[in-house]
Amino acid sequence: MMIVAASRFAPLPGCALPAEGSVTFPMGFRGAGVHAGLKRSRRDVGILVSELPAVSAAFFTRNGAAAAPVRLTRDEGATGALQAVVVNSGNANACTGPQGDADARTMRDLAAELLALPAPQVAVSSTGVIGLPLPMDVIEKGIGKAAAKLADDGGEDFAAAIRTTDRSEKQGALSVAVKGGEVRLGFAAKGAGMISPNMATTLCFVTCDAAVSAADWYAMTAAAVGASFNRITVDGQESTNDMVLALANGASGIRLADSDLERLAEALQAGLLAMALAVVGDGEGATTTVHLRVDGALDDGEAERVARAVAGSPLVKTAVYGRDANWGRIVQSAGMALSPNGCGPLSCDVAFDGVALLRDGVPLALSEAQEAALAEALAAAELDLSVDLHRGAASSHVYFSDLTHDYVRINAGART
Amino acid sequence: MMIVAASRFAPLPGCALPAEGSVTFPMGFRGAGVHAGLKRSRRDVGILVSELPAVSAAFFTRNGAAAAPVRLTRDEGATGALQAVVVNSGNANACTGPQGDADARTMRDLAAELLALPAPQVAVSSTGVIGLPLPMDVIEKGIGKAAAKLADDGGEDFAAAIRTTDRSEKQGALSVAVKGGEVRLGFAAKGAGMISPNMATTLCFVTCDAAVSAADWYAMTAAAVGASFNRITVDGQESTNDMVLALANGASGIRLADSDLERLAEALQAGLLAMALAVVGDGEGATTTVHLRVDGALDDGEAERVARAVAGSPLVKTAVYGRDANWGRIVQSAGMALSPNGCGPLSCDVAFDGVALLRDGVPLALSEAQEAALAEALAAAELDLSVDLHRGAASSHVYFSDLTHDYVRINAGART
Repeated sequence: MMIVAASRFAPLPGCALPAEGSVTFPMGFRGAGVHAGLKRSRRDVGILVSELPAVSAAFFTRNGAAAAPVRLTRDEGATGALQAVVVNSGNANACTGPQGDADARTMRDLAAELLALPAPQVAVSSTGVIGLPLPMDVIEKGIGKAAAKLADDGGEDFAAAIRTTDRSEKQGALSVAVKGGEVRLGFAAKGAGMISPNMATTLCFVTCDAAVSAADWYAMTAAAVGASFNRITVDGQESTNDMVLALANGASGIRLADSDLERLAEALQAGLLAMALAVVGDGEGATTTVHLRVDGALDDGEAERVARAVAGSPLVKTAVYGRDANWGRIVQSAGMALSPNGCGPLSCDVAFDGVALLRDGVPLALSEAQEAALAEALAAAELDLSVDLHRGAASSHVYFSDLTHDYVRINAGART
Repeated sequence: MMIVAASRFAPLPGCALPAEGSVTFPMGFRGAGVHAGLKRSRRDVGILVSELPAVSAAFFTRNGAAAAPVRLTRDEGATGALQAVVVNSGNANACTGPQGDADARTMRDLAAELLALPAPQVAVSSTGVIGLPLPMDVIEKGIGKAAAKLADDGGEDFAAAIRTTDRSEKQGALSVAVKGGEVRLGFAAKGAGMISPNMATTLCFVTCDAAVSAADWYAMTAAAVGASFNRITVDGQESTNDMVLALANGASGIRLADSDLERLAEALQAGLLAMALAVVGDGEGATTTVHLRVDGALDDGEAERVARAVAGSPLVKTAVYGRDANWGRIVQSAGMALSPNGCGPLSCDVAFDGVALLRDGVPLALSEAQEAALAEALAAAELDLSVDLHRGAASSHVYFSDLTHDYVRINAGART
């Protein structure tokens, strides 16, 4: 399934979209995803490996209760030279004490042995329920099975194996024309709840067959993560297990000219943004993705705080769900985040998909045509929302989902 | 209706509870609440006035988009010598531009004229929908009607007039035995959503007939607000209209001895805590009030951030609603707020109503008796939750409500 460019918010800068695409679309990668038994019937253990030594860029959750696999990979892994990842879904191996640390290490060492790689070059990643010990017999059998099934076209199975409450796989690929031919990018992501990454994310794996330096690859991945996964929120909850891992192995044989580095960086960012938007669009219970733009803030900090305050407000999020252009709640939540507090009045503008509802703090009367445009905008699956604070020149933006009955149903129900 | 001491979280320090109680229980106060027409059929305009000059303590929202009545009272009122308040529900007069400022002033000046008070001694307060102009003809008639109905026993009507989505009036009274007789306290509050006060609150009005200095009254009210309304959250949303106003008029004829000031301060704090808990318990859609205690934080800032992060997590709040002792989500949300980030593992303890589920980061097996105690605790309307971070000696605590289908229904439905 191709999800890249499914959103009007993520235009692609002149890349070719293969009809099918996954993390094994780039050359020199193999993948597998199998059903081990953590989940009832779906795939739940996966391996992704580069056939050649790769440069890697890895970003981890900043949550102070980071899970065992995150800490093992971050603290003991060769984070610039990772060559493979072993991942399970259905169990996060988070808050599992010393046994969890030992289990993450066992997963890594077993995968490294089967892949004939040094252990520090294998990343470990887990996602699912927090606080339950990993059933290691199930996991170990699954790793063995996955290693035996590694294939050049195994990317789709790998993407399936990282799903939890996701409604669908999130994957895609891009071809980027460069001097000397083309290089390829592949993407797989998972995530639906506990989504508010901070220089890290829900799980996302990126493959690339260009030959780039470790420094260039790190820089372009960091920038792309900052402009994509770090700009989304479903429920404001930074996970214990967030990880972005991007591998570039040079298997295309093409070392990028400086002039082509920028093209690859743009494609990488577009692909990651498409993945991030797929995560928001699939936010638990979500019916709408809102792109909120904040302008006119005093400084960058205020712009960021206001964007996060509005995007995080359950009153704004339920109003979006209710198709109510409730700009009052937008102004109220923006007001919480202004610096310094205690001032007012706040003479801001608010517009929904270009229909201005408030200008300089004064509500506007809408024409019949504007009312119709507003109703149409609110009914759509993607909505543009803009706030101008008229306090300065700083801007920020964020993508967020609405808060719905299904979010409550999913999260008040069986433990996930 | 007497709600003081309805919660096990708010024991009263040896005060007498009158069978009925309201803001007109203390001597020398008159109140009224009438139906003007902002709401379909319920009371919506109220006046509360002291018959004698009073000392006052007033606390306002820190929201940068503070409403017109807040800014007028805060910026032009005699905040240490207020003698009356005029209030309407059904319309917040927030985000209403210059016309809203003029309307708040008209409300104040009309009430001052009818009460024969200087305008700066009259507070103005509004609560309800944001962003709609006040229907001033309705308001003005209502103020006239309320002024004509002011009565020594008008406190209940006043409390009714400040309700919005509240399921019931929130009011109460206390008698405090002191040297020379007794002094009386009366309370009225409103609030159900948009609740996360910051040195202010949803609307709350306090009356007292002791003779105290303005400085003593301010100090004890500030402390009591800090320990009550500033420790609650329903949805993390600081309102544009929050206000606490406390008047002490000396009508009892009793000037408190120094030794009795502390008793009055304790009673004031207990009464405000009972009001604050009534607001949380009546949180939009709420089924459960949780008292979260955080110990073992590195410093006060971390303790406060962790308490707010856990109390604000929609995943924790939906788990409480689902009667799921999901300590994993508690650790995850606490982990978001640790300083410095990026460390881990977090070896904390988590207990529900004294039943330990996690110790030093390791999940505990529960006995059958513990399972039963846990189920009973989760089923109750009030729940104690404790987290010990084992990182230092700082503590904090907060009261919060759960996130339910009804919260979504109320806030995604008709505009409130």
